[in-house]
Order: sequence, then C-alpha cells, then structure tokens
Amino acid sequence: MKDLAQALPTYEDVIAAHARIAPHIHRTPVLTSEYFNELTGAELFFKCENFQKAGAFKVRGACNAVFGLSDEMAERGVATHSSGNHALSLSYAAGRRGIPCNVVMPRTAPEAKKAAVRGYGGIITECEPSTTSREAVFAEVQEATGAEFVHPYNDPRVIAGQGTCSREMMEQVDGLDAVIAPIGGGGMISGCCLTLSNIAPEVEIYAAEPEQADDAYRSFKAGHIIADDAPVTIADGLKVPLKENTWHFVSSHVTDILTASEQEIIDAMKLTWQRMKLVMEPSCAVPLATILRNPEVFRGKRVGVVVTGGNVDLAKLPWMAD
Amino acid sequence: MKDLAQALPTYEDVIAAHARIAPHIHRTPVLTSEYFNELTGAELFFKCENFQKAGAFKVRGACNAVFGLSDEMAERGVATHSSGNHALSLSYAAGRRGIPCNVVMPRTAPEAKKAAVRGYGGIITECEPSTTSREAVFAEVQEATGAEFVHPYNDPRVIAGQGTCSREMMEQVDGLDAVIAPIGGGGMISGCCLTLSNIAPEVEIYAAEPEQADDAYRSFKAGHIIADDAPVTIADGLKVPLKENTWHFVSSHVTDILTASEQEIIDAMKLTWQRMKLVMEPSCAVPLATILRNPEVFRGKRVGVVVTGGNVDLAKLPWMAD
Repeated sequence: MKDLAQALPTYEDVIAAHARIAPHIHRTPVLTSEYFNELTGAELFFKCENFQKAGAFKVRGACNAVFGLSDEMAERGVATHSSGNHALSLSYAAGRRGIPCNVVMPRTAPEAKKAAVRGYGGIITECEPSTTSREAVFAEVQEATGAEFVHPYNDPRVIAGQGTCSREMMEQVDGLDAVIAPIGGGGMISGCCLTLSNIAPEVEIYAAEPEQADDAYRSFKAGHIIADDAPVTIADGLKVPLKENTWHFVSSHVTDILTASEQEIIDAMKLTWQRMKLVMEPSCAVPLATILRNPEVFRGKRVGVVVTGGNVDLAKLPWMAD
Repeated sequence: MKDLAQALPTYEDVIAAHARIAPHIHRTPVLTSEYFNELTGAELFFKCENFQKAGAFKVRGACNAVFGLSDEMAERGVATHSSGNHALSLSYAAGRRGIPCNVVMPRTAPEAKKAAVRGYGGIITECEPSTTSREAVFAEVQEATGAEFVHPYNDPRVIAGQGTCSREMMEQVDGLDAVIAPIGGGGMISGCCLTLSNIAPEVEIYAAEPEQADDAYRSFKAGHIIADDAPVTIADGLKVPLKENTWHFVSSHVTDILTASEQEIIDAMKLTWQRMKLVMEPSCAVPLATILRNPEVFRGKRVGVVVTGGNVDLAKLPWMAD
C-alpha cells in the first residue's frame, strides 16, 4: 500500500481546500428551530450537510483529495473503504474528474448507499461488516488497481476538506459558543478542531457518539486510541475507530465527548424529521440526542450542530419496527 | 353564520398582509436540485413552505386573518374547519395573539396534525370526512362560540396572506417562467394568481391536482365549479372543492391544471425525500408528479414549485404499505 502523506494538515490546507472544492460542493444553509431552542434552552444552528452534494459532508474531503491529484496520479483512479457516505462522495468526486473509483463496502451497508455509489459510477467490492475484513479486502483491491488510496477520515487531504464545513459555519453564524458533530473515525471533528483552533479557539468542540460504539469516548478518557472491531449501532456511519491523525486533533482540541443510547438517537432523529422537516441519517441525530441528554452543558449557549448527512434507506426507518 | 367580507382581495391587501404577518412567519428558503433539473429538463426552484411556522404555507393566511381582527372581534376568538394544516396554522396564529381557536377536523385526519393543533392550543371537534359533515358540524360549533369564522381558503384575508408566498419567491428567484402549486380549495393558487397577475403577469401559473380528486381540473375545463363530496386520495390536503372567490382567481389567471395518479404522487414524494432530503406531505408532491408526467410543458423553463407543507404521519408513510 502506498504511503500516506503523514504530515498533519494545517489551516492553510483548509483555505486551499475550500478554493479547490468550491465549484463541486454546495455552501449548505444553516437552519434554526424555535421548537428545539425551547426544548433545549440553547440556541441551535443546524448546518445542513444533508443537503450537500452526494448527501453528506464527506464530499468536501473527497473532492479535496481527488482534485488535488496530479494528472499522472489521477489516471490510475482512486480507491477507498467506507461505511457508505465516503464511498459515494469519492465516487461523485472521481466522476466529476472523469477518473475511476473503487470502493470496498460492508455487505450490510444500506441499499440506498450502495445504489447511490453505483449511480455515481463507483465500483463496489463487498466485505464483512468488521474493520478487520474491510482492511483485508481493501488491500486486495488496491493491489489489483494501483489506485490512489483515499482513507475515509485519516487522510490529511480529507481532514483539510472537512475543515471547510466549520469554516463556512463561522461565516454564517455570529458568536458561536460551541460546535457539536458526530464522531466515528473523527474526520469531521478533526476538521472542526483544525479550523476552530486556528480561527476561533474560544469555541468549545463537542463530539457525539453512540453508547454502543463509544470507542472514541473511551479513547478520550483513557488518553490513547481504543479500537473496537465490529460495534453494533443504528448510527452506521459511526462504527469505525480513530486513527493517528484524527486522534491527534481529538486529543488536542476536543472539549468533551458525549454519548447517547440507541433509543435516544432514534427519538432525536424522528423528532427532527417531524419538527424540522429534515431527512437526516441516524448518525447525524446523535449530536441532538446528546444535547437532549445533557441540557446543562449547552443551556444558554449558541451551538452549531453539524447535520452530517441524509442518506437513509426509506424502506427501513428505525421507527417502522415499533 | 356571520357574513364574510365578500370583496375580492387586491394586491394592496397582499402588501399589507406581508407587513402584518412578517413577525410571525419565516421567509422560507428556495432550494434547487441538480438531480431534478436533469430529470425534468427544467430549472426547478423549490419554495420550502414545509419549513414554515406550523409546517405549512397556511400560516400566512391564518396570521393575516387573526392579526387583522379588531380587539373586540379578537376577544371572541376564531373558528374554522380544515383538513389539517389550516387548523394548526389558525391555532398557531390565535395562540400568538392569545385568543381561543375552535377547529372542526375530519376524524380521519393524520394523528400528527391533530396532536399539533392541540399542541398550539386549538380546541378540536371531529366530523366525518366529507364536506357535508364538515360544514354541518362547523355550523354548530360556530353558533355555540360566536367566534370569527376564518374559512381555510375562500376568505379574502386568507387569499391575501397566501399571496405573500409567491411575492417572496419573485424576490428570491430571477426570471421565473412559471409557478406551480397544488390545488385543493384553491387558496394558494389564488394567492399566486393575485400576486403574479399584478407584479409578473408574464409568469405562467399551473395548478397540480390528484387524479382521484380532480374537481378543480373538471371545473376548469367545464367553466363552472364542480364539487365532489368526499374524494379519496393520499393527498389529504387537496380534497376540498373550489369556492366562489378562489374560482374567480383560478378561472381568470390559471394557465392550466395538471393531474397525477396516486402512484405518481407517492413516487414523487419518495424521490424528493431521497434526493432533496426534504420531509414533505403527499399533497405537496403533486406538482413534481405532474411535472414528471408532463415534461414537455416545463422543459427549458425556470419553474417555481411551491412545497406547501411537511406535516406527515411518520408512522404511516405511503411506501410502508409496499
């Protein structure tokens, strides 16, 4: 496997990424809800990356990686493994540049995501739903194609790309006291850390995680990376572990990591659909679920909430099982 | 029953309404979708009234009626009959003014709408799901309370209020060739006619209706009002017939009325949830369904699409029956 550029990204990389990806992404709107403000006692500003190209924030990092390649590297295409949104974001980005994209996805990933990857021209190889299987299958695919590996969250180009989201949010909302986003592998949170520690170091950064996949929470408390192999949670985008680059940002800049139960995540998701009329994934209901569980942390604060994506299988909504 | 002010509203009434209701409503965003533009060959601009206060455009007309009352009239409260969104919009408006609101609703209306009406402080009396029953039960309620009747769509104050929606859309989008909105009783379409015939008479106005409740379509073709008593359609907001004031606007200014089947409405609704991440009601998927059915009418045009509301029962989504 090709070596990754190991240097950590800088805020200059975020600025360069923003210019590079601007033609390929949406500047997504920030929505507010009087209902949720009253419910939480905080002022919440929802950054709607569910309206983003390819339906998720991950297109920021993917476009930055793809459009930063030299023509020679681009020719061999890109490849990745992903629980879903990075896969379709990389496929989207590769399609915009006209280069091939190979993706390794768990066979249990939502059908809607697999169909979307294929719709953008991505080539899928399935693996078992564990980190071990995913990495093994990927090594075979990467060996066969010689494509440039774009890791879904540990890649510095990806972290710099995700950092453009909180950069936009700071332009769109005045006087934020805190930002909260879901944490899986830590790409979005690392982007927030990178941007905010440079342009607004007074803003608190909270990460939100499912109780049933709380490896980042336990890592944060222990002071070193703890990785679980195959956690089970409805928040399918948040099952992956931290890696060295994201751990650097999480351990250096995150204020705290909060968790929520499966039922709290489902309730928050359903409430958002009902009251804000937003289709969001289970993964991106986790921040609101943790705010509702820990109102004292956020009361009276102006809080930016990253709504990370909206790619959900409408035939398998969690409350259908009720 | 008290006489309605029978004079038709003017565009000056729309301007006055806009100033009156501005503190109580959202200026809703206009969203676009590259996917739907490619699918239809038109440029579509979705005016997202599903993000509106109380979840639907009807809060515009309801607020205009409630906040235009003299203190003496307001004291006795307001009353109405409605298939849902007008009921909760009037309850919301009355609550903001601190006056009582009595509403007659079909017992078959979605639970989510009944709960929302009660949440805003409205007092519900149930009727059978037919126009005949609705009007009979309402007469009793109105007699008992002496409240000011605010008809859900035929009331001139309501039509002037709904006219503020297309006024905003014309400020938000340049060079529209056409506007399309669902038609039930015709309140939103009449508001569009009132505004556009005054400030942009070159803009075509299309009304979209379920095939299974196509009384407005048949009225338009026949040249006089045809009213059905209890049509059956998933688009529960569009079952009511035209009345004299809305018929005036529809017959004078509408370019054409287009229809869609139940399956086409469900498909358009699901596609919007999947691709635009918007929670919208079946009723407001009807315009997109008719655009997809009649692409030749819209191809190459810039089309404003009114997304009328997002109050849907998440436990009873139409594709759950698949």
